[in-house]
Amino acid sequence: MKKDTRPKSKIRSFAVPILSALKPILDSISSPELLRKLQLADLPHLAKELREFIIGVIATKEGHLGASLGVVELTIALHYVFNTPEDRLIWDVGHQAYGHKILTGRKAVFETNRQLNGLSGFPKREESEYDTFGTGHSSTSISAILGMAIASKLKGDVTRQHVAVIGDASIASGMAFEGLNHAGVTDANILIILNDNAIGIDPSVGALKRYLTNVKKGTAKDENIFECLNMAYSGPIDGHDMEGLVKELERLKSVSGPKLLHIITTKGKGLKKAEENQVAYHAPGKFNSVTGELIKKSDKPQPPKFQDVFGHTIVDLARNNDKIIGITPAMPTGSSLRYMMDTFPDRAFDVGIAEQHAVTLAAGMATEGMIPFCNIYSTFLQRAYDQVIHDVALQNLPVIFCLDRAGLVGEDGPTHHGVFDIAYLRCIPNLIIFAPKNEIQLRNIMYTAQLGLDQPIAIRYPRGRGVLLDWKKPYSTLKIGMSFELKQGNKIAVLSTGPVAIMISEIINELNDTTSIGHYDFPFIKPLDKNRLRSIFASYDQIITIEDGCITGGFGSAVLEFVNAENITKNSKMFGIPDEFITHGPVKDLYKIAGMDKETVKSYIEEIL
Amino acid sequence: MKKDTRPKSKIRSFAVPILSALKPILDSISSPELLRKLQLADLPHLAKELREFIIGVIATKEGHLGASLGVVELTIALHYVFNTPEDRLIWDVGHQAYGHKILTGRKAVFETNRQLNGLSGFPKREESEYDTFGTGHSSTSISAILGMAIASKLKGDVTRQHVAVIGDASIASGMAFEGLNHAGVTDANILIILNDNAIGIDPSVGALKRYLTNVKKGTAKDENIFECLNMAYSGPIDGHDMEGLVKELERLKSVSGPKLLHIITTKGKGLKKAEENQVAYHAPGKFNSVTGELIKKSDKPQPPKFQDVFGHTIVDLARNNDKIIGITPAMPTGSSLRYMMDTFPDRAFDVGIAEQHAVTLAAGMATEGMIPFCNIYSTFLQRAYDQVIHDVALQNLPVIFCLDRAGLVGEDGPTHHGVFDIAYLRCIPNLIIFAPKNEIQLRNIMYTAQLGLDQPIAIRYPRGRGVLLDWKKPYSTLKIGMSFELKQGNKIAVLSTGPVAIMISEIINELNDTTSIGHYDFPFIKPLDKNRLRSIFASYDQIITIEDGCITGGFGSAVLEFVNAENITKNSKMFGIPDEFITHGPVKDLYKIAGMDKETVKSYIEEIL
Repeated sequence: MKKDTRPKSKIRSFAVPILSALKPILDSISSPELLRKLQLADLPHLAKELREFIIGVIATKEGHLGASLGVVELTIALHYVFNTPEDRLIWDVGHQAYGHKILTGRKAVFETNRQLNGLSGFPKREESEYDTFGTGHSSTSISAILGMAIASKLKGDVTRQHVAVIGDASIASGMAFEGLNHAGVTDANILIILNDNAIGIDPSVGALKRYLTNVKKGTAKDENIFECLNMAYSGPIDGHDMEGLVKELERLKSVSGPKLLHIITTKGKGLKKAEENQVAYHAPGKFNSVTGELIKKSDKPQPPKFQDVFGHTIVDLARNNDKIIGITPAMPTGSSLRYMMDTFPDRAFDVGIAEQHAVTLAAGMATEGMIPFCNIYSTFLQRAYDQVIHDVALQNLPVIFCLDRAGLVGEDGPTHHGVFDIAYLRCIPNLIIFAPKNEIQLRNIMYTAQLGLDQPIAIRYPRGRGVLLDWKKPYSTLKIGMSFELKQGNKIAVLSTGPVAIMISEIINELNDTTSIGHYDFPFIKPLDKNRLRSIFASYDQIITIEDGCITGGFGSAVLEFVNAENITKNSKMFGIPDEFITHGPVKDLYKIAGMDKETVKSYIEEIL
Repeated sequence: MKKDTRPKSKIRSFAVPILSALKPILDSISSPELLRKLQLADLPHLAKELREFIIGVIATKEGHLGASLGVVELTIALHYVFNTPEDRLIWDVGHQAYGHKILTGRKAVFETNRQLNGLSGFPKREESEYDTFGTGHSSTSISAILGMAIASKLKGDVTRQHVAVIGDASIASGMAFEGLNHAGVTDANILIILNDNAIGIDPSVGALKRYLTNVKKGTAKDENIFECLNMAYSGPIDGHDMEGLVKELERLKSVSGPKLLHIITTKGKGLKKAEENQVAYHAPGKFNSVTGELIKKSDKPQPPKFQDVFGHTIVDLARNNDKIIGITPAMPTGSSLRYMMDTFPDRAFDVGIAEQHAVTLAAGMATEGMIPFCNIYSTFLQRAYDQVIHDVALQNLPVIFCLDRAGLVGEDGPTHHGVFDIAYLRCIPNLIIFAPKNEIQLRNIMYTAQLGLDQPIAIRYPRGRGVLLDWKKPYSTLKIGMSFELKQGNKIAVLSTGPVAIMISEIINELNDTTSIGHYDFPFIKPLDKNRLRSIFASYDQIITIEDGCITGGFGSAVLEFVNAENITKNSKMFGIPDEFITHGPVKDLYKIAGMDKETVKSYIEEIL
């Protein structure tokens, strides 16, 4: 274990004001080792600088803001008290770890945050020894830190400390409970810091949140819920009081076994507008670093975000169909289910970070004849995979899954790309899988699904905007399994699923091709339009499939399986996400890395023309 | 809503002894409606009969015993007090629902339990209107009953009752917590009955179990953990006291909103041996219905169960490698990790029904250089799919997953078949997937993996026994991605993965073929042995792939993807599980239904020979 570099007498220095604290110090803190040489009285000033630095960079470079501002004091206190990286520190979810990155040697490159080849927006093991565990999805930190603590003990390292910081929204997720339930019966040397700001991305919900509110008000009864789970509980304390934080962390260092410290913080702390509008300033885009004023984007009319097509359409459909219910696990804003929550509050549910529960809740509703739209980001449906199979598909209940953020999502990176869904859903019997080409198809499949299906359906659509300004067309019904001939050809057939169809159309236009290239839109990945496939494979020499999902097991693979079963001996060129995790950065760059950007596909077609 | 058929004056009849109670009554109870015509004093006698009936049938027909014996009184009380099926009743996990099945019109066919075309061993919607929600995997009942209750309310049905029965092992799983967390902030009319017998299949573990023990001892403090979550808590009461149960259920019927009744029961109640040895009598096989004595199976030496190969091998390897850790989510007996828990208690962990936590705990340990074997049934790994992707594969941590019960599992049926794993794992970058042909390959891949891999691996093997009496051979290292030529041929190549290789070898022997059929064993499903595939596709006219997993996206599909990428134009016949849920019954019959039994495959090969 590395040497503990903190001055032994530090705690006694609380009351000593340090004049040097008024000089800039953040620049000199190139590592926590140097941070630990400061006097306690310097720390509030460092916090001010760190906060200003974060605000300054994020104002122009964009990223997650509110969460990191809320834990500035905690971040400093943790690195001050604990001997990181020898002591292990995990940030749950990880979008609050900007301060941590800046204090652990990454200040100079922090402006590359979330950019291609730049820092990841989340802790990442490859990036720094201080990032002991990569996060992105919520509620993993308790399990991971417990694993580390048990390992330390087995290795005979009894002095190492293990700390996980987890928010009140994340600790309410089932996985976190599983971690606590195990931790409470171990003697593992772990400290869980419950960072309670009463909000995740949207305000926290649920009975635990209600309970924590009572604790903060002092209206909870004697025994604490965490004590029930055999955690040594302390708090709640003010997470912005540096002296209090440092003292309590010092004290807890000497308490062995599993313990939980409850701290109260304000998301967006230090930027008035961010404190006042915590949802908008979770990831606000560009803003004025002094006033906090958001920088308006162009007023030019733009096509809608897919999430808004979902959000407005479900409200519209719900007006005429009182069986429709909307469910989101903690993403009312991100999914735009918010519109339905505002319009039909009795029929729209934010269940918190609880994907498993969300899916089986929907299944229960479906047994009673309701028509639940269960909206979950593609990457988060991975959390409810068993429930999709066991509770929905096996019972053939007509739950309508809406998978937002399917495909590559850009700056959030590999923890958030929604590229596996086609592969992991395609093997599930009874399930229809649909990828709309554009806003109108999304509306029409939602319309079709709520008319009453005999089976479940998963509708996957990407992050970001569609292509149509005029998208609120009258609804029309889609026949299950149908495909569309977008353009006839005689040589090369391009089979696309989802919005990548738009890119293919552009390529065809740019190539000025009128006769050679045929283009077919397969919104139904399952069931496939078999007649169409037979006819395509009979009529074209060259077949290309393209999808914004992994090639392994995906749409193109479904086509191969069909072709093989039909004893057709014609290969296809498959474009999609290769068998690797794709980094973070602008979506355009990422599709290039994946080898399915416009240039690459166009060149390939040109070559075989 | 159907008429409430219970006599209004029933409650007053508690004290009246009924002479008729000594006559057999179970035979006359062909529906809960008739049950509800009995006097309360008749019920203990009915319980006795029901218990005897269950014991009598299971003694010869086999099945789950202890769980159903433990809830005989509860089952009768629930159907007596509530107006099923109009009132909704869900049995979590469902292997305790035999009494429920017998009392809801299925007594005459109960001896077909778990047999092909017979009753399912779990509640099943298709089977009865009383089975309102199919179960099998644990901890789904709270979410499902809440969905039903919310739906009832939206439909304007305010009198309908909604009851879920969940065990103390199941309620400690994260998904159940998510359900409680949501339920506690609704006014949904639900009653959760916590059936606390301190055991799942193996004894319950974790901090919540410890807490519940304190509650039972009266040593817990004032506020109850469920009250913290805003559930109206009552109990604990004796779950074998019929009068007490009926009274309390009657009382709770008039309490609106979410409520939890804590009852204490004894698993195996009423059969001494089953009470004394609750693990063995969870599903004891055949036994003497009077003495409870287990009926010994043949003493003839038999090949080992795959689970025991795992269990003995990990202990053996752990002796020489102190980095090895074993993890099981609540299956120490079923996975045979019990052997390691007995031998190296510090390095083997039963974390309870917490698959998500199990996987990320393993990931945390792997970051510290430990070598965790995380043993999870194939069907239950679906519960931790996101953790495999996000916490293990993305960080490329060398966790060793051992997936027991892969393939069709037989009598437990579609909730438990492990047929999707190849498809859902194959799309995950960095992950090695291995299916051993036999006991020796399982040992050797475990040996190879613990030598230190740079990436994670999933090893899938089936329920039941292998084929080798002499399986404890010296270890040898397997080269990652290697395949084996089991027999050379010149016309038909059969590519198998996993133990189905044995069946193929038998077919080849039975056909007396020496020259035509080649047989290749691909234990590595990922990465594939590409050179071998090139050579096979160059040398043979006919290619057959076979796997005990779903065809969609599986091993055969991986071969297609490779062949397509290589521009080879040769099709293959793919044997595997078709795109449907396979019912329950003897494994042999199920493989026939799946179209991949020996006869079918042999006929196919004969025909093309």
